[in-house]
Amino acid sequence: MPKFMDVHHAMHPVMDVHELGHHGMHGVTPEALQAAHQADLDIQDEEDVDFQRAWGDPDSGMVWCISEAPSAEAVQRIHERAGHPATEVYPVPVEV
Amino acid sequence: MPKFMDVHHAMHPVMDVHELGHHGMHGVTPEALQAAHQADLDIQDEEDVDFQRAWGDPDSGMVWCISEAPSAEAVQRIHERAGHPATEVYPVPVEV
Repeated sequence: MPKFMDVHHAMHPVMDVHELGHHGMHGVTPEALQAAHQADLDIQDEEDVDFQRAWGDPDSGMVWCISEAPSAEAVQRIHERAGHPATEVYPVPVEV
Repeated sequence: MPKFMDVHHAMHPVMDVHELGHHGMHGVTPEALQAAHQADLDIQDEEDVDFQRAWGDPDSGMVWCISEAPSAEAVQRIHERAGHPATEVYPVPVEV
């Protein structure tokens, strides 16, 4: 099954810095990423997708997911239905 | 040790489509990615970096590497010295 890397830009909108103050953690919290990933896992079988791992950067709001799937479109359909469409989905046939 | 995701855009310049013809595979071949990764591994101990995995998309020329390192700067120094500076290096403290 082909592998895909998908990228989410600023999954959670960055808050205004004055609103946020110095104590806020904008972007992706561990809980938010876990919930988003679980939402994918809950429906991924319907498109034969296997989301394997996800990484997030709270400061930039970037998230990357690695998956195995029949197509990039299948990956995107699951992400869209789970409420967090990817900004880009790339095939990654090369891996070391 | 913190984790980082670094991104390389068009690691190998995309060739002109007429020059390439219909048989060429532009972007990252398995051999090129293996060689680039090995060049990182050969010197990573000097910055206490551990490059764990890399994925490439030959069509877009995009490459992603996941590593553990003391800092984003340490990751970048190894990539620069190995001849393939990253376009961006992100901390990924959140992982599922």
